[in-house]
Amino acid sequence: MIKVSVIGATGYTGQELIRMLTQHPAVEVVGLGSQSYAGKKYVDIYPHFRQIVDLTCRDTNDPELIEQADVIFLALPHGLSVPYAKKCLARDKMVIDLGADFRLKSPKVYSTWYNKTGPTGELLSQAVYGLPEINRDLVKKTKLVANPGCYPTTAILALYPLLKEKLLEPGSIIIDSKSGVSGAGRSAQVGSLFSEVNEDFKAYGLPHHRHVPEIEQELTEAAGEEIKVSFTPHLVPLTRGMMSTIYTVPHTFEADKIKAVYQDYYGQEPFIRLYPQGQYPHTKWVQGTNFCDLGFSLDQRTGRMVIISVIDNLTKGASGQAIQNMNLMCGLEETMGLPRVALYP
Amino acid sequence: MIKVSVIGATGYTGQELIRMLTQHPAVEVVGLGSQSYAGKKYVDIYPHFRQIVDLTCRDTNDPELIEQADVIFLALPHGLSVPYAKKCLARDKMVIDLGADFRLKSPKVYSTWYNKTGPTGELLSQAVYGLPEINRDLVKKTKLVANPGCYPTTAILALYPLLKEKLLEPGSIIIDSKSGVSGAGRSAQVGSLFSEVNEDFKAYGLPHHRHVPEIEQELTEAAGEEIKVSFTPHLVPLTRGMMSTIYTVPHTFEADKIKAVYQDYYGQEPFIRLYPQGQYPHTKWVQGTNFCDLGFSLDQRTGRMVIISVIDNLTKGASGQAIQNMNLMCGLEETMGLPRVALYP
Amino acid sequence: MIKVSVIGATGYTGQELIRMLTQHPAVEVVGLGSQSYAGKKYVDIYPHFRQIVDLTCRDTNDPELIEQADVIFLALPHGLSVPYAKKCLARDKMVIDLGADFRLKSPKVYSTWYNKTGPTGELLSQAVYGLPEINRDLVKKTKLVANPGCYPTTAILALYPLLKEKLLEPGSIIIDSKSGVSGAGRSAQVGSLFSEVNEDFKAYGLPHHRHVPEIEQELTEAAGEEIKVSFTPHLVPLTRGMMSTIYTVPHTFEADKIKAVYQDYYGQEPFIRLYPQGQYPHTKWVQGTNFCDLGFSLDQRTGRMVIISVIDNLTKGASGQAIQNMNLMCGLEETMGLPRVALYP
Amino acid sequence: MIKVSVIGATGYTGQELIRMLTQHPAVEVVGLGSQSYAGKKYVDIYPHFRQIVDLTCRDTNDPELIEQADVIFLALPHGLSVPYAKKCLARDKMVIDLGADFRLKSPKVYSTWYNKTGPTGELLSQAVYGLPEINRDLVKKTKLVANPGCYPTTAILALYPLLKEKLLEPGSIIIDSKSGVSGAGRSAQVGSLFSEVNEDFKAYGLPHHRHVPEIEQELTEAAGEEIKVSFTPHLVPLTRGMMSTIYTVPHTFEADKIKAVYQDYYGQEPFIRLYPQGQYPHTKWVQGTNFCDLGFSLDQRTGRMVIISVIDNLTKGASGQAIQNMNLMCGLEETMGLPRVALYP
Repeated sequence: MIKVSVIGATGYTGQELIRMLTQHPAVEVVGLGSQSYAGKKYVDIYPHFRQIVDLTCRDTNDPELIEQADVIFLALPHGLSVPYAKKCLARDKMVIDLGADFRLKSPKVYSTWYNKTGPTGELLSQAVYGLPEINRDLVKKTKLVANPGCYPTTAILALYPLLKEKLLEPGSIIIDSKSGVSGAGRSAQVGSLFSEVNEDFKAYGLPHHRHVPEIEQELTEAAGEEIKVSFTPHLVPLTRGMMSTIYTVPHTFEADKIKAVYQDYYGQEPFIRLYPQGQYPHTKWVQGTNFCDLGFSLDQRTGRMVIISVIDNLTKGASGQAIQNMNLMCGLEETMGLPRVALYP
Repeated sequence: MIKVSVIGATGYTGQELIRMLTQHPAVEVVGLGSQSYAGKKYVDIYPHFRQIVDLTCRDTNDPELIEQADVIFLALPHGLSVPYAKKCLARDKMVIDLGADFRLKSPKVYSTWYNKTGPTGELLSQAVYGLPEINRDLVKKTKLVANPGCYPTTAILALYPLLKEKLLEPGSIIIDSKSGVSGAGRSAQVGSLFSEVNEDFKAYGLPHHRHVPEIEQELTEAAGEEIKVSFTPHLVPLTRGMMSTIYTVPHTFEADKIKAVYQDYYGQEPFIRLYPQGQYPHTKWVQGTNFCDLGFSLDQRTGRMVIISVIDNLTKGASGQAIQNMNLMCGLEETMGLPRVALYP
Repeated sequence: MIKVSVIGATGYTGQELIRMLTQHPAVEVVGLGSQSYAGKKYVDIYPHFRQIVDLTCRDTNDPELIEQADVIFLALPHGLSVPYAKKCLARDKMVIDLGADFRLKSPKVYSTWYNKTGPTGELLSQAVYGLPEINRDLVKKTKLVANPGCYPTTAILALYPLLKEKLLEPGSIIIDSKSGVSGAGRSAQVGSLFSEVNEDFKAYGLPHHRHVPEIEQELTEAAGEEIKVSFTPHLVPLTRGMMSTIYTVPHTFEADKIKAVYQDYYGQEPFIRLYPQGQYPHTKWVQGTNFCDLGFSLDQRTGRMVIISVIDNLTKGASGQAIQNMNLMCGLEETMGLPRVALYP
Repeated sequence: MIKVSVIGATGYTGQELIRMLTQHPAVEVVGLGSQSYAGKKYVDIYPHFRQIVDLTCRDTNDPELIEQADVIFLALPHGLSVPYAKKCLARDKMVIDLGADFRLKSPKVYSTWYNKTGPTGELLSQAVYGLPEINRDLVKKTKLVANPGCYPTTAILALYPLLKEKLLEPGSIIIDSKSGVSGAGRSAQVGSLFSEVNEDFKAYGLPHHRHVPEIEQELTEAAGEEIKVSFTPHLVPLTRGMMSTIYTVPHTFEADKIKAVYQDYYGQEPFIRLYPQGQYPHTKWVQGTNFCDLGFSLDQRTGRMVIISVIDNLTKGASGQAIQNMNLMCGLEETMGLPRVALYP
């Protein structure tokens, strides 16, 4: 059994990790770290784990969290991961960071968008951007994974093959994204109250949301030339689910050609599903699963194509993808312990 | 008192008309026509009108519906309005059609997008596209108003001043829209069931939704040159509310210049509110009101601007706008009987 | 024009007062007091009041709030109203307290259930329990109204006529209540987050919720003998709306007799609607209105009757009722400025 | 591998069966029968099964559905199961009926509450009421299980031990129940539309809902004397989840005594969780799982106790319980393939 600790276990991504790890056939959860709930039983924070999880939260700096584990998940607010990652690596443990700290390869870009200094040098260069569909081989060999953001996962998976194949006009990409409320986490804020969010729909964070440099970094890498994107996130009154509606100018309007490229890149992927033309995935079709579902529409009339990309923001958009990375790092079957059947309706 | 009939009174737009008309100080509702509920008391269909509406639904072809009224609202499924409109006009009554039949000035465009023959000739040419902020004077003089669609209302109001002032790249317009579920009406369909829609988010109707030609007709008119738009509607799990997130390439990135244009066109408008840069309206801020709220963001980095336009799809997107038109046609104060204070939270 | 201040204007009941007061034909809002937002423009807290309210919040202790007003609404957390009420009365102003501090006539009962000392003596004895359907004449004559709680409003209105007429077994009353989330107010708490409340249903506060003594006080008064009730509140994932399902043992199973009693007490009430047997009101039928809707079912098989009582918790359950009291205190038409048409759907 | 067919596979309980059966390690789904969708691929009805289920629906009368299977689930509207059950039993197959037809042991009671003739004689007497916690041994030995209704599951599990131990006043039981909307099934009805149900709460079906005789039959059996209950179901605006709030008069107010009885009966049950006094289960804590969670509160002041009983109406309330029964009938581990970790938040 692989021994696992989660540092930052009481937020929603931490909780989502526990949901899947407790059902993972090759994993034993040995430690839960929490800044706010140290000393409290996990089941008192999340009573739905009654008779399932019997652990007590420990201080995030408790060295046993790292000592006892083979793999450590960091599910912390942005900017806090570096010291934990260092300690883990120093003891030759595997680390998967669900925060943003190791995602950007350029310390300068990081400090521009996050207004603080991030990791640099050798530490940063060890980090692999953990999108298995693109960096599978690198993930298998690293001890430090920077788990992608939720919005970037939808956008990069949708665009990567087409950019790689030079099928898109590089300056034409617009990403209109919609997220469920769980993406805002479990912190008590007026803007996340039921009475505020329910029966409401809003845009936020435009035009300079922090996921922009992450998306651009990966798309630029794919295209082999600089890519800049317009990105607008919105908040949808639902708990789980994320969609990106992506507008771009393609170099071809032959649907079969587009389809063939997707098929070529993703036909064997266990967690990507391609839809036939005219069918567009709903967020509910991936609820609770690790899938990224993709559909597209070509509109010769306007010269654009639209790509619809959906995930569960907590699963493929965070904790499911983190476990997918863990499976790869540990040499397990990539799909092990990861849900494929949505909770519906 | 102005006497009013509603033909098609039992759908959601019909019901929304009744909500406001019963509180309108210069109106008396005299007739309710329904295809499905003729002979049934209105309060048995919508019990929240208990002690408020005491009328019984009549067959939509009951001539008294027209005879007894000064103004007739048609809230019928698309394709059914022409004979009713003809009868009304023949008796010199005022007609406001909430359906699509009189919105498109070109019968050819109508038949292309609706797969049927629409009105033509003199009848069609009487119809004024009832967006008061643009066609106020024409509305005042006509007996036949084609009440705009909900999506077109958000898009046209957002873009009209900028296109009129030649501030936008004509081929650059992308409209990513999101609608509450009440827009699908009250017909019993699996796709509108609570268990299907709740906790779901989906795109639909792309790339050729029927509101495209309506939007393009009015934007082309404003720009003085042909405008084609990309348009993607989505369904949001909330009852009332609509947002369009509009992407376009502006010729200026001076916010004050954009703001001045909006101010110039809309500064005196009773139902348009402009937000300061950096604030973007939420759908809930207009819930139950006749407002269209507008905000915008300029992003020189990508060369684009984003406009956020929100309405309540049943009010400014349908029945509120219809009453605004009625007020104009009847020489009443334009704002009379129209809600301005949102139901919040 | 009656000049009105709201002290505690930024919570949901404060906001709901402003919603209605700004549309009230005989009222001018002159002052808004806020503990947390003093110095901030109201429209920056609640942007849906853009172009409607132009006031800036003042410190709740600003004497002008009282000085400039004829009527002062106190919408404060429990336990804070007494000093404000005293100051108002000292200047001969009318006060309507939406909190609990003046509702219980026995200081001992108050201190038992609220764990603090409440008002006493002459101050307390001035307070009228502001349920107009029962205490209309007293409300008209007082300067200090204790506005009822939301749950008590549903329960007392449902049971008062039947207890008064000795039609119920006194020890048989069970009140199973369900409330929308806005009842928890706008304070940032994990338990009120969208992701926690959405798709959840829970009971809370049993068996000793603080509304019990208020309900029992009024029912005991009505019955002329001591009434004790079982009361279980639940949280429903909706914003506005409250239902009490009340179980009791009646002395008659003749529906007409029950109906006649209700008709006798409430037939002329502008804000109570009685439903025919077999029809039970939905919360949505009163959304945004000041109605209390009542339906009942007799079940001779089990020897019990069920009464269904619904209100909008923010309107008839708080701010609407407060304005109804204000109208009475000021000699205005009781229904003035109070919504009767629900926002539907 | 056990071969399984589902007749009535396209309703929500059918779909919920498929969700769990496709993940069940000892089951192969061989046949899907549908009245409305015969000939259609299952994935075209429920696209979330893309790459998971590749079957095509067959006519419900296709004999292969029975022929090829070891176990047949009937998930049909009430009144249709008898002929299918007969055919299955004639071929010595195991049948689990999720409808109501075999639940009532008295044909007379059945015809009174369902207004039709149900099964009788030898056929009916073979049927075991499939509540494993009570009838485990009988379920193991039968070929025909009548799977309990959702409301009865909550009520019977909550009350059975206390009635069996003669701890309750027999005439005192009131069951106030609340259900998510998925319980109404997937049929297209106005009353189940999102816009009708969302932001609404209603009672329905009182006082004579069809689950009453089922509850009374089992409680009478437990008590050894006739039990009549008051039962009021309500509709909650959420998809999955059911709570019963049960009021009764206990013979003891010693919490430990009550707790000990529950512990004694359910301490070893894999799908029942007991909560400590003062904690009451939420519906979300069992979302997607096969748990029934129980909490209780004693109130000596009023002489009553309140029991809170929650399930996921589609899982323990229907399809999960059906699979639990299948496991028992087939000699498998009772918990096999049944989810215990809720999808949260």
